Amino acid sequence: MTAAQVRGAVRDGTIAGPTERLAPDHVQANLVVVPSEYADELADLCARNPVPCPLVEQLVPGAFEPRCAPGADLRTDLGRYRVWRNGELVDRPRHVRELWSGDLVAFLIGCSFTFDHALAQAGLPPRHSALGRNVPMYHTRVPLAPAGRLHGTMVVSMRPYRAEEIERVRDVTRPYRIGHGEPVAWGDPLQLGIADVLHPDYGDPPVLGPGDVPVFWGCGVTPQSVIVASALPFAITHEPGHMFVTDLVHADVARRERTRAAAEI
Amino acid sequence: MTAAQVRGAVRDGTIAGPTERLAPDHVQANLVVVPSEYADELADLCARNPVPCPLVEQLVPGAFEPRCAPGADLRTDLGRYRVWRNGELVDRPRHVRELWSGDLVAFLIGCSFTFDHALAQAGLPPRHSALGRNVPMYHTRVPLAPAGRLHGTMVVSMRPYRAEEIERVRDVTRPYRIGHGEPVAWGDPLQLGIADVLHPDYGDPPVLGPGDVPVFWGCGVTPQSVIVASALPFAITHEPGHMFVTDLVHADVARRERTRAAAEI
Repeated sequence: MTAAQVRGAVRDGTIAGPTERLAPDHVQANLVVVPSEYADELADLCARNPVPCPLVEQLVPGAFEPRCAPGADLRTDLGRYRVWRNGELVDRPRHVRELWSGDLVAFLIGCSFTFDHALAQAGLPPRHSALGRNVPMYHTRVPLAPAGRLHGTMVVSMRPYRAEEIERVRDVTRPYRIGHGEPVAWGDPLQLGIADVLHPDYGDPPVLGPGDVPVFWGCGVTPQSVIVASALPFAITHEPGHMFVTDLVHADVARRERTRAAAEI
Repeated sequence: MTAAQVRGAVRDGTIAGPTERLAPDHVQANLVVVPSEYADELADLCARNPVPCPLVEQLVPGAFEPRCAPGADLRTDLGRYRVWRNGELVDRPRHVRELWSGDLVAFLIGCSFTFDHALAQAGLPPRHSALGRNVPMYHTRVPLAPAGRLHGTMVVSMRPYRAEEIERVRDVTRPYRIGHGEPVAWGDPLQLGIADVLHPDYGDPPVLGPGDVPVFWGCGVTPQSVIVASALPFAITHEPGHMFVTDLVHADVARRERTRAAAEI
């Protein structure tokens, strides 16, 4: 299936579950939509915290057709949405057409589904993926660098690996900067303030075997914890796991990253 | 004095102290020099941790004349250097000409001296500055996002302000992304794992009055804590407070930042 076909199947309900493993060569993205008066602050929050919040694209106010997926509609092409008022989750609709307005600014933020495919190809398939489950995600006590009225703590995703696999896992995920890059931590979950890895805050509980080491990556659900901590008057996000599938191909993004890095030097 | 005149006076010893308040319209920078085999990892560390480590310029292997200061020499134009072997500080020379080689890669990283001038102009002069002291800097327990073999915790600088001044202080420093931007935290130092603000790890002890709130910014001394934590075989840095004065003018950098942000969108 092409990315456009996945979006179409999600839009008409043929695909109802998480989007992991769909159009695996394509970049998937977290959605965050805020009133325009918060757009500069959210852009700054992403720039200051690029590991949990790598910016794929910021749209102009009111726009819902991203440049990374011409013909797509951010109001309908995700499987499930979350609607937030004053920092509280108030609804989980199937589309957000009626809620949209010319004052809303949409942000697409990179997702670790982007490297799960690469891990599988390297012979290091993520456990949740092999079991057909959603990746477990956790609140941490790691503070974000605040940006104006926006503040909060990092959310991480977790994949268990054996100790001897971790350096290879780091190497495989490192180049995917737009998908959170290499892990932020591994080993004792308490170093991040996670009390119990068996009870994630989002996604499905992990299945851990003897000798498994939890490995943690920055997670694009982080802005949802910012919405809560900062009590944003209004926001729309995706439901964790139900991502926006872009037309961007990993290989092209990696090339763009290298070009940009060279231009900065 | 122009930036080139400051560099000349530092080189010939006419100026011996910290560089704060010299050529105040110009961007000052932290210096970090590593063996070329660590250059990609340090570039990645900066990209993943842009608040403490905002990259101003990465030079090609062996180069010591940065594009941000034509005619300058990074081996001689800082007031005092630190030489590190296996993660230990082994020397504090006045220049590093004899230590240089074609295998070394120099990084210039933004500095908060860049916004101290703006704070003073806004009627919010930093305390250390008014007292002619060096800014106090502290190790924290906030973990950096690791990059390959490089890992560590954030170092912060501190300026005390009254509670009612903090929002203005945040607004003034926010645009200086290349100089760490707005504060990372304020209030209780323990939230960052700082046990005693009166005993900084670098710089001069602060002078705190009743009603003063400590305000903390990311600090370009952070790579020095990474050199220690990661036990780098060899590195050269500046001595904290003795920065490299670039030819870059704040206003130009702010314009470039805006242009880059627009290009990304």
